[in-house]
Amino acid sequence: MIYTDIQSSLNGESVEAILNVAGGWAGGNASDKDFIKNSEMVFKQSVNSTLIVTSLASKFLKENGLLTFSGAAAALGATPGMIGYGAAKAATIHIGKSLAASNSGMPKDSSILTIAPITLDTPMNRKWMPKADTSTWTPLEYIAELFYKWIEDPSSRPTNGSVVKLTTTGGNTELSYH
Amino acid sequence: MIYTDIQSSLNGESVEAILNVAGGWAGGNASDKDFIKNSEMVFKQSVNSTLIVTSLASKFLKENGLLTFSGAAAALGATPGMIGYGAAKAATIHIGKSLAASNSGMPKDSSILTIAPITLDTPMNRKWMPKADTSTWTPLEYIAELFYKWIEDPSSRPTNGSVVKLTTTGGNTELSYH
Repeated sequence: MIYTDIQSSLNGESVEAILNVAGGWAGGNASDKDFIKNSEMVFKQSVNSTLIVTSLASKFLKENGLLTFSGAAAALGATPGMIGYGAAKAATIHIGKSLAASNSGMPKDSSILTIAPITLDTPMNRKWMPKADTSTWTPLEYIAELFYKWIEDPSSRPTNGSVVKLTTTGGNTELSYH
Repeated sequence: MIYTDIQSSLNGESVEAILNVAGGWAGGNASDKDFIKNSEMVFKQSVNSTLIVTSLASKFLKENGLLTFSGAAAALGATPGMIGYGAAKAATIHIGKSLAASNSGMPKDSSILTIAPITLDTPMNRKWMPKADTSTWTPLEYIAELFYKWIEDPSSRPTNGSVVKLTTTGGNTELSYH
């Protein structure tokens, strides 16, 4: 149903970029009483949204277009205190790497990039972590500008399939590629 | 409900090993018309079963017990022709690595190992790939004996959290660790 809605509103056109910023978080290790329920929730939030935008991108993204996913820096290693969340983000990262490989079904010369933030400076994070040092949180404006640059200037994009880790210190954000 | 059933049948005892051999396969790249449906199916088969045994293991596995997961060698790299399957197995591998880390909620001194076969010699694979060279397929007997050895002799187990790749050539299987 999403397809037909989008198809008719696009009227045969395709789009420059699709940015998946859906997500969510839940902690918990294997002994947590809500382990399965919370893990299923984070898989729905992160993986299902990634699968949906992937399918849409294969149909509606322009050649040379940009598809971005929301990963997490934590998922580059083991995540024993947030097992479901880390695994869902690891799956997201794997989808990004697979889409960058040959015959993935993506439009010609498109770029798939997965951002891997540590903590984002969002209203929800401010609400739930009121005493945290926010100078290490990545501002959403930074990410919006990064996406804008990648869309406008394809030569500024990292290698297709990159996981782009965002490390913010003293309000200054640096990128590293994985 | 599974918990109370198992709890009452175990009658306060715990178990030496929990082996998750549930799984399934579906191919398809991003442009496949059943991409989302098939991806959700393989996540149910591989990830949900992994989450369930993980939760059970945190409650019913003995100290020094063994928990095994079913990964896939393909998921150690990009899987553009079977995107959902590769991502579900990457998530499974990530859960195994997280459980091997500190404070994962697993019983003391337990081992979590994820096998990563290339192709298993199963009746279903024989049925669907009748012309394949089965000398590169790993016999189920080999895996059963491997599990048995790991259960009986904890000193034979690879490092906790290992992904154990099974490579079969001419009917002979070798292990490598990732």
